[in-house]
Amino acid sequence: MAIPDWLDETESRAWKGYVLTRDRLAAAIGRDLARESDLTFVEYHVLASLHSTPQHRMGLSELADTLQWSQSRLSHQITRMERRKLVARESAVRDARCSDAVLTETGLETLCNAAPGHIASVRKHFIDNLDDVQLATLADTFDTLLKYLTGGEPGPSPQNT
Amino acid sequence: MAIPDWLDETESRAWKGYVLTRDRLAAAIGRDLARESDLTFVEYHVLASLHSTPQHRMGLSELADTLQWSQSRLSHQITRMERRKLVARESAVRDARCSDAVLTETGLETLCNAAPGHIASVRKHFIDNLDDVQLATLADTFDTLLKYLTGGEPGPSPQNT
Repeated sequence: MAIPDWLDETESRAWKGYVLTRDRLAAAIGRDLARESDLTFVEYHVLASLHSTPQHRMGLSELADTLQWSQSRLSHQITRMERRKLVARESAVRDARCSDAVLTETGLETLCNAAPGHIASVRKHFIDNLDDVQLATLADTFDTLLKYLTGGEPGPSPQNT
Repeated sequence: MAIPDWLDETESRAWKGYVLTRDRLAAAIGRDLARESDLTFVEYHVLASLHSTPQHRMGLSELADTLQWSQSRLSHQITRMERRKLVARESAVRDARCSDAVLTETGLETLCNAAPGHIASVRKHFIDNLDDVQLATLADTFDTLLKYLTGGEPGPSPQNT
């Protein structure tokens, strides 16, 4: 019994390369973060997501959508981070029945302390291994994929252009 | 207090695009798999990894390395998959003190049943949204990154070439 292989050689290299790179990149960058800060990659991602908003807060539903997590998984994560005073839960400004996750002073300080090392790690394992053309193509490729994945739009063109 | 932003615009689009795409792509492809088969993306990945070897078996250490998981996380995963008879644990051929994970008949059948839908899903969410140049560049880019991440080799050239 064989698995049908409906991907051609380049497609297969792109997809399998993506899957393998994804796991190894997360591991390498996660190890650097753990060594140099008290944050996991996931915690850094949550803090950086909150930091990216003007008020340093985000509705739990929106944050779950950004991270593509279930509400329940996010809720457990936020509870763990609340215990460490990295984030707080507050009533949402627009609708008191909903909750926002809010970056605390401790969270901001922890994020800012971790950022230089994390950015250096992203450079080392990802950016500095790629040339300008690869980087620019990657940036455009992820723009295209994100547009599709967030809006359900079809890609900009048929596969072969 | 601000996070230093040491990535230029293209670098930032490439990295943040990568992180956001990664989470959404895994979610979209995971949802398709869950709807059309009894497998999670992780389970599919384990079965496909075993299937990719000539004997449909792999040492637990090697499998942990392929997936970039701790031995303990892998062991729990394999135990859950053993209960469903998707894989079996056997003494390693080369060293009976070590264990191999082995693809069972049920595992093979489950994988082969899931494969056409999974490949269609990978096409839909990933490959078909990209043109030939993007795909070829991605394939080369992931080759470069994997070579570095698996061997600790420096990238092929300084950043600007």
